[in-house]
Amino acid sequence: MVHAKIPETEYPRVVIIGGGFAGLELAKSLENAPVQVVLIDKKNFHTFQPLLYQVGTAGLETDSIIYPFRKVFEEQKNLYFRLAEVQQIKTETQIVETTIGLLHYNYLVIATGAKTNYYGDEQLEKVAIPLKSIEDAIELRNTVLSNFEKALQIDDDEQLNSLMDYVIVGGGPTGVELAGALSELRSHIFPKDYKELDFKQMDIHLIQSGDHLLKGMSEEASKKALDYLQKFGVQVWLDRKVKSYDGYTVTLDNGEKLISRTLIWAAGVIGSPIEGIRKESILRGNRLQVDTHNKVAGYNNIFAIGDIAAMITDTYPQGHPMMAQPAIQQGKQLAKNLVNLIQNKPLQSFEYDDKGSMATIGRNHAVADLKIFSSEFRTQGFIAWIIWMFIHLISVIGFRNRFLVLVNWVWSYLSYDKSNRLIVGKQLENLPVEAVIQKTEV
Amino acid sequence: MVHAKIPETEYPRVVIIGGGFAGLELAKSLENAPVQVVLIDKKNFHTFQPLLYQVGTAGLETDSIIYPFRKVFEEQKNLYFRLAEVQQIKTETQIVETTIGLLHYNYLVIATGAKTNYYGDEQLEKVAIPLKSIEDAIELRNTVLSNFEKALQIDDDEQLNSLMDYVIVGGGPTGVELAGALSELRSHIFPKDYKELDFKQMDIHLIQSGDHLLKGMSEEASKKALDYLQKFGVQVWLDRKVKSYDGYTVTLDNGEKLISRTLIWAAGVIGSPIEGIRKESILRGNRLQVDTHNKVAGYNNIFAIGDIAAMITDTYPQGHPMMAQPAIQQGKQLAKNLVNLIQNKPLQSFEYDDKGSMATIGRNHAVADLKIFSSEFRTQGFIAWIIWMFIHLISVIGFRNRFLVLVNWVWSYLSYDKSNRLIVGKQLENLPVEAVIQKTEV
Repeated sequence: MVHAKIPETEYPRVVIIGGGFAGLELAKSLENAPVQVVLIDKKNFHTFQPLLYQVGTAGLETDSIIYPFRKVFEEQKNLYFRLAEVQQIKTETQIVETTIGLLHYNYLVIATGAKTNYYGDEQLEKVAIPLKSIEDAIELRNTVLSNFEKALQIDDDEQLNSLMDYVIVGGGPTGVELAGALSELRSHIFPKDYKELDFKQMDIHLIQSGDHLLKGMSEEASKKALDYLQKFGVQVWLDRKVKSYDGYTVTLDNGEKLISRTLIWAAGVIGSPIEGIRKESILRGNRLQVDTHNKVAGYNNIFAIGDIAAMITDTYPQGHPMMAQPAIQQGKQLAKNLVNLIQNKPLQSFEYDDKGSMATIGRNHAVADLKIFSSEFRTQGFIAWIIWMFIHLISVIGFRNRFLVLVNWVWSYLSYDKSNRLIVGKQLENLPVEAVIQKTEV
Repeated sequence: MVHAKIPETEYPRVVIIGGGFAGLELAKSLENAPVQVVLIDKKNFHTFQPLLYQVGTAGLETDSIIYPFRKVFEEQKNLYFRLAEVQQIKTETQIVETTIGLLHYNYLVIATGAKTNYYGDEQLEKVAIPLKSIEDAIELRNTVLSNFEKALQIDDDEQLNSLMDYVIVGGGPTGVELAGALSELRSHIFPKDYKELDFKQMDIHLIQSGDHLLKGMSEEASKKALDYLQKFGVQVWLDRKVKSYDGYTVTLDNGEKLISRTLIWAAGVIGSPIEGIRKESILRGNRLQVDTHNKVAGYNNIFAIGDIAAMITDTYPQGHPMMAQPAIQQGKQLAKNLVNLIQNKPLQSFEYDDKGSMATIGRNHAVADLKIFSSEFRTQGFIAWIIWMFIHLISVIGFRNRFLVLVNWVWSYLSYDKSNRLIVGKQLENLPVEAVIQKTEV
């Protein structure tokens, strides 16, 4: 195997695998550090995952929540970006094997994030729609719109419902926000687009394994989220799990069945580890055990940050929540510690500054548990919704993307419209209407 | 085969196949006519084709130049849109066979437009990139960006050039505008994104079979376009044709060879006719022979408009140019004539009101031949560029899309940036870097 073509410099090389919130923040924070930074990602852009559900429900353009890495790093002289996939790590020789060749590292940072967890159910994995990448969001959008195009040809009630009904599994922020967004489409958009269909027939089911939504948020937030969803006509199933799904029938753990051709799986994530890390350091959920400096147990020059890292502390016995904030903060902190390490200075332990969490349910309705200077501030409804929008808006990278998101939101708010109702790609392959019709003929 | 599920009304049914400029205009113009309109398209959106090249060169978001049909027709009560592909027409029984079932028509309008013409060269068709659909534009964008990502790993000069050089075939507006846009990327964007590559090595070839560019425009326009392109460093080959292309070597008709992994084919279009129309009515280039009322020769209730229609007149012995303007005007005119027909009034002959044509070469540089109240007005340079932008901007459908295009243009103009440098889709499949590297090792 050849070596990837990256100039050798006098500086130690930091290889970062993954440009999510953690990896991106680390790479940026190393701008003036005495290191060469190599950032590897499978995509040539960073994805702002918290807004994927809005792309999936036609509210935002695909291109407004993804941002090219090369544009982020245009001015950063010590950074080399490489579009590549990592195959394995050889820790003895300090080599990363990638699709573009071998890459030597002095310090390796694993920031590969998390992937959807289907708990080993292969059939589910094949037929459910996840929501972790921009391609997933496009698939969701294409599927939802194609469903209604197909539904126009159907007489049979069950077949019709299979196309019009949606099952969302997972009552975390993604599931809750998606259910809310679908209910908005049902109220304001679809009845205008598909006048021949009766949208009273469109059911949106949200299935949550625990006894409350938005686990980890306050009881107030969780209760209000449930109230809002019910007010918007979402059928919330608490304390229920999906036993199986074959692409048509959803069987719940109590034996009840739901019919839907579209099941969105937002019921958990699992770390995306890498070949070559010793097994002892891989904890439950595929996360890597790190110390308070984000150093992976058993190595001196390998670190892990973000969702893939499990930093077990008294306050966080399961590691930090798999969200943007801990990832960003760990990225920032590790940048400082890498410099300390090189300069033989003592390292600083990571302390998570929990700023709280939020979820939006729909127009004017959100819930927020905020922590400001260690005092808690909880709010629900319009104020929470404004805060949610503001925080998300300023977090989107790049002035232009931020502006596009803002324009879309203002436009949607004033017009009750979600404009990106586009089926892009090989849409006829997505439309085996014949098959559906033939079933109904029988 | 079942019947497509569309309500029967007391009004005669007009089935329009294709929602390009012609079909869309016709459908909209029939809003208050005493007919039921069924619009069929393979996509659920209208594509603003003149700006595809800007999506292909990262200047515009994909979603800003496509517009959902259902949004266009939200308020139009007599219109039914169906996402379907037409398989054939049974003219005796007045039936259209589609992927969603059979559809009876009283009046049929064929507005299927044109597709890329490879003149029967199957190998070319397999390896060249066309630029007729939004998916083509996305493919072009993905290919260009992936090329440079791959180039970063290459030492061998020929291999490097095969990835960095571009061959555009066809000196019409698409070819000229694309060559200009690529040269802008070369000047302002790529050197910042790929600092390790030497962009003096990036060649852009534009191959034109005739002795001048922009056939159909004035000599002034054509000469200036050539001047501008040469000023921007595009290598223009006049009086040259491509003999063959295998995905790597372009062989010209004089035996000269160019090496490039990317050839964009904009060298001609051919009508997309439909199974079931009698052969006698299909003219050269697969266009359908129509009379001055756009009625297809040999039928009483079948019409053709836009690129697919060849209305042979003294002024236009080859039919009208295959552009947006004749299509839109024919759509508008046919709407009136269909009403006349139903009300037994005399039909009006179509007269093309040629408003001129334009092409932009790059920042501040365009050529325009305008016809205003039958006087000609020719201009090149900055004024032409402003006119080009204005005309295209007001032609984009929908306030929101227009606004998005405007924001992108203003942003690009001020920042010299083209922000959508995104490889969306299965990009790793687009990146068989290994293969390239192995070649260079030998």
